[in-house]
Amino acid sequence: MKRLLIVASLIGAAPALADEGMWTYNNFPAAKVKEKYGFEPSQEWLNNVRLASAKFGGGCSSSFVSPDGLVMTNHHCARGCIQQLSTAKKDFIANGFYARTQAEEIQCPALEVSQLVEITDVTDKLNAATQGLTGKAYADTLKAEMSKLEKACTDGAADVRCDVVTLYQGGKYNLYRYQRFQDVRLVFAPEHAIAFFGGDPDNFEFPRYDLDVTFVRAYAKDGKPAKTPKYFKWSDKGAKEGDLTFVSGHPGRTSRGLTVAQLEYLRDTGLPKQLFKLSEMRGMVTEFQNRGVEQKRVSSNMLFGVENAIKSIKGKHEQLVDRAFFAQKVAAEQELRAKVNADPKMKAKYGAAWDEIARAQDTYRNIRKDYENIEGGLGSHLFGMARTLVRAAEERTKPDTERMRGFNEAGLRTLETQLMSKAPIYPELEIAQMTFALTKVREELGADHPFVKKLLGKESPASLATRVIKGSKLADLKVREQLYKGGKQAVEASKDPMIQLATLVDPDARAIRKTHEEQIDAVIRKNSELIAQAKFEVYGTGIYPDATGTLRLSFGSVKGYTEDGKQVNPITVMGNTFDRHTGEEPFALPKSWLAAQKQLPNATPMNFVTTNDIIGGNSGSPVINKDAEIIGLVFDGNIQSLGGDYGFDESVNRTVAVHSEALIEALKTVYKADRVLEELRPGTTPTVKASPGL
Amino acid sequence: MKRLLIVASLIGAAPALADEGMWTYNNFPAAKVKEKYGFEPSQEWLNNVRLASAKFGGGCSSSFVSPDGLVMTNHHCARGCIQQLSTAKKDFIANGFYARTQAEEIQCPALEVSQLVEITDVTDKLNAATQGLTGKAYADTLKAEMSKLEKACTDGAADVRCDVVTLYQGGKYNLYRYQRFQDVRLVFAPEHAIAFFGGDPDNFEFPRYDLDVTFVRAYAKDGKPAKTPKYFKWSDKGAKEGDLTFVSGHPGRTSRGLTVAQLEYLRDTGLPKQLFKLSEMRGMVTEFQNRGVEQKRVSSNMLFGVENAIKSIKGKHEQLVDRAFFAQKVAAEQELRAKVNADPKMKAKYGAAWDEIARAQDTYRNIRKDYENIEGGLGSHLFGMARTLVRAAEERTKPDTERMRGFNEAGLRTLETQLMSKAPIYPELEIAQMTFALTKVREELGADHPFVKKLLGKESPASLATRVIKGSKLADLKVREQLYKGGKQAVEASKDPMIQLATLVDPDARAIRKTHEEQIDAVIRKNSELIAQAKFEVYGTGIYPDATGTLRLSFGSVKGYTEDGKQVNPITVMGNTFDRHTGEEPFALPKSWLAAQKQLPNATPMNFVTTNDIIGGNSGSPVINKDAEIIGLVFDGNIQSLGGDYGFDESVNRTVAVHSEALIEALKTVYKADRVLEELRPGTTPTVKASPGL
Repeated sequence: MKRLLIVASLIGAAPALADEGMWTYNNFPAAKVKEKYGFEPSQEWLNNVRLASAKFGGGCSSSFVSPDGLVMTNHHCARGCIQQLSTAKKDFIANGFYARTQAEEIQCPALEVSQLVEITDVTDKLNAATQGLTGKAYADTLKAEMSKLEKACTDGAADVRCDVVTLYQGGKYNLYRYQRFQDVRLVFAPEHAIAFFGGDPDNFEFPRYDLDVTFVRAYAKDGKPAKTPKYFKWSDKGAKEGDLTFVSGHPGRTSRGLTVAQLEYLRDTGLPKQLFKLSEMRGMVTEFQNRGVEQKRVSSNMLFGVENAIKSIKGKHEQLVDRAFFAQKVAAEQELRAKVNADPKMKAKYGAAWDEIARAQDTYRNIRKDYENIEGGLGSHLFGMARTLVRAAEERTKPDTERMRGFNEAGLRTLETQLMSKAPIYPELEIAQMTFALTKVREELGADHPFVKKLLGKESPASLATRVIKGSKLADLKVREQLYKGGKQAVEASKDPMIQLATLVDPDARAIRKTHEEQIDAVIRKNSELIAQAKFEVYGTGIYPDATGTLRLSFGSVKGYTEDGKQVNPITVMGNTFDRHTGEEPFALPKSWLAAQKQLPNATPMNFVTTNDIIGGNSGSPVINKDAEIIGLVFDGNIQSLGGDYGFDESVNRTVAVHSEALIEALKTVYKADRVLEELRPGTTPTVKASPGL
Repeated sequence: MKRLLIVASLIGAAPALADEGMWTYNNFPAAKVKEKYGFEPSQEWLNNVRLASAKFGGGCSSSFVSPDGLVMTNHHCARGCIQQLSTAKKDFIANGFYARTQAEEIQCPALEVSQLVEITDVTDKLNAATQGLTGKAYADTLKAEMSKLEKACTDGAADVRCDVVTLYQGGKYNLYRYQRFQDVRLVFAPEHAIAFFGGDPDNFEFPRYDLDVTFVRAYAKDGKPAKTPKYFKWSDKGAKEGDLTFVSGHPGRTSRGLTVAQLEYLRDTGLPKQLFKLSEMRGMVTEFQNRGVEQKRVSSNMLFGVENAIKSIKGKHEQLVDRAFFAQKVAAEQELRAKVNADPKMKAKYGAAWDEIARAQDTYRNIRKDYENIEGGLGSHLFGMARTLVRAAEERTKPDTERMRGFNEAGLRTLETQLMSKAPIYPELEIAQMTFALTKVREELGADHPFVKKLLGKESPASLATRVIKGSKLADLKVREQLYKGGKQAVEASKDPMIQLATLVDPDARAIRKTHEEQIDAVIRKNSELIAQAKFEVYGTGIYPDATGTLRLSFGSVKGYTEDGKQVNPITVMGNTFDRHTGEEPFALPKSWLAAQKQLPNATPMNFVTTNDIIGGNSGSPVINKDAEIIGLVFDGNIQSLGGDYGFDESVNRTVAVHSEALIEALKTVYKADRVLEELRPGTTPTVKASPGL
């Protein structure tokens, strides 16, 4: 995977016609798209696409595909909900789900879909408020101003969320207003075996043969399907090689604007440490699954998440240890610094920023263990809830602008949704996870660290975890509600061992969090902001910001690539899906597909790749054509795209999507899900009986 | 842990009085020791110490401590034997072992102790044979010449082993002749709980409180205790702060002479990849232990090995990502290259060596996945035996000098010992390990790799592993004997599924092994040899070679150090051992110690540290004073010493040892093991009854 990535546009000298960039909707390079592909999206086109797009849960993308709130996303994005709705007797992960009538649609616990309705630039306001400040004063003021803007924007409405989004490492601040849909119900999901056909071995690979789709429906507060007049219609033809493609979604995070000191830290310490822990967790959960059928069921979602993260982070690590790539990053930074230093005014304003960040990074190296282990949570959902209750009780006694980030009035709405989730808690898995986490805390900090002594006392990780999880009543939603409503008094009076544990460790966690905020976070924010401004000054503003989990639009086309000297065709077909079937997990097709094999045309397109620039978080994004019609559903990037966190290489980085024709053919022939089909393509569905298999 | 290491002596400019170095017995800096410590070991002293030292098993050290073959090593070195001798009903790991009479001493399966009786320099012979050769010709000739020398040296004697040892990366070759003791019997082992008190959290830490000792006895061919006239006597006083100390043992491997390109590879790829896999294995085995009491027992040795390796490799990785240290390595290489390039003759001879190694390292990057996964073994002992049988059958048909390394007549003796080991095989653990290994092979190579398709066919890793392990008869020693004796015909006719699997994959494994030998190994050997010669030419020969698992002697003294600004006392005492007891594993003392607490003087020294330069493999080494008396037993290095793979920092790198007084006090008061005590210190032991606890 040796290659030189084109990271030029981030430093301003963008190659005129590259498909690089996860663009914000208020700075989309429409003219550039026209130049390369002959089509210029209008402002109206952009507005409609934005409103038909939706953030899905905490870290995925989705789209509205009917005027009645029907939402399309990936199976792997809705996995949490599908598993939470399953029981030992009704396993929707294994067997799939189809609501034959609207009444059969089941509400997902703690799942939220949100639509970006307005973007406001608040850069000047924030810059004015923080001018001349550094360190703690800078961090506090910035936090307070953000809270103030968010509160005013939300204005107490429970179905509105407002976030100040930091773009260009602080070069710009935008206020994003969202319409929240908090009643989301499951409509259709295929079996896991076809949604994730090929499993971890095929994950991030191409050619690929997955039907990674799930449909849910957003409901309004009146309990009726939400009205969503802005939605994507279905393309009659679907994606063809060479087609211009747009992807509208929520890429989670890229790090293309980081300094060399930051990248070096990630390469040497940050990413390896994450991978050590995730790898161990993977081994633990894989073997935990052997405890029994039910244990396998309740831990499969976690295992998927861990394996997915491992493969993705390994891809990033590979990119950073690519010496040619790293040298290019070093050269780009040197070039920018040379230009800054050549101009006395710029030098005075920006010249020290890189070294300041390097120093903050070194400070972080020294407090990393404490920060990650003391503030990092203890591997248990119940502990997470307890910590939220303890902190909310404390923070809610303070003025809005002085609260810990996330606990201001705007943020509390999201916390409340999570805290009051009806998702089941699995104590046996919780104990295993918490034992693991406590063991890691002791391992990293050492048995003699004061925090470890406070945390464990004379107990072992396993005995502490078992005691607090078995003894806690927090799995009961009513208990959480009482504690939340009861505030500080209720929390302080609680005898719940998990609440007591969270209370015990919170002062230490807050202290190290504060150190981190003031000595690391504030310094990096402040100086990254300066570097971003320097980039604007040197290279102009026609550049895109790093991904931040907010809505972006990318453009590209359906196009193959070369791997190990061989040409990879951009589109796979259904027939080859059956060739890959071995009968053994993860290469075992579900019965429904084997039964329908003869009715499925071999040549129907299954999956395809495009040159769109995406990253984790884009899962579930629609692929649309210039008429804003659905031609595919993004569910992955190829293995080469994983390094996309640090730079984009159009020659090999690819978006991987389910083809729109595969979705239609499967719904029609395998699942006979006419209700969904009719909603996607009104008037085209013949009436047939739903598959008895589902 | 930021510090600048003194790696100077490896590049020749040794600071006059540093305690650095794992010295060979034929190049020991006796004059330097005299200069610093006032004592100059004579040749006779060196000979006696060498003969009283012994290699223990595959990767540990030990010493003779009586004229009747009594051998002292670490509990963690003898763990394999102790576990193999245990059963579900008699768990010597948990409860310890003491043979009250010689008749009760039990033979360890597949354990060998060996004594280095002669060293011969064969550098000139090998250089003459390989002069002017490169690539395959060089590798083949070198291998053939080594086999020839080893065969002549062994001369068919089963109790002699001869190895050509590559020193100074090929700058020197020495022929080592060993006396082998293949009948080794367990005499005494304490409970695991005190041998490894503090467990993984305390591993590689100091202050420390472990009784990591085991005594075994070497037996002669006549079934009687071996006569070992060269042995270490016991010191009356034991180690005191400031004492001059020698450590004689078998450090496994250091990498202080590697080039920057090699270190960069280890930092970015080699060490992280190892840690990803080991971490996952650790998670798997930790959770495997929850399957049940017996599963915990049979997998505990493996878990210890994995955890120990993780901590040790993490220490190395930390050292290489220390930027100051790495910069120092770069500077040292640049200095040497500049000196070489300044002299036209040297430049012509050595100038290209570094770039050649860098190129070979890049080639390795490209074949690493294939090499490690196809030739790496499949995680099962039974598969390992099958591969040995398949390869031996093939290799034994060839002339000695043309065989695969390890299969020449000299090497076969060691292979036979391993192959005919009576150690139990645990099928459930085997299946878990092989499933894990097969999953990793598929993960790294991808499901579409031809080797993966050949290996798995339509089976999953779990189904293949289960089929071949349940179906194999190789756990039966007689079956292995028949196949080994039957040679090629027997192996080819075998219907054993594990033999068939090993036969199936062996051509691929041999092919990639050959590529590795010729394109990587030979190039690196050849050019490392040139660099070593350049170092001799530039800096002289008063330098020590990297550790190679062969006998070395280091010197130093009992001395504390400073950590996080605090002074660490070099000696711990028994009293504090009890302070650390929590009652929960791994901080739970065994009953025998709790019962004896009142009789154990608080002030008795327990563990101590010295400045001796050691590395993994030194475990079990004796610490001796200038009178060659036992004053301690090496069982660990401190966490700072782990980076010692790449360089030595006398200010903080420490050897950790059990104090000789702790050994005596425990044998006397806790275990009442008079037979051992009397043998260690004849005439000093009062007759008491052995503890009923053992």
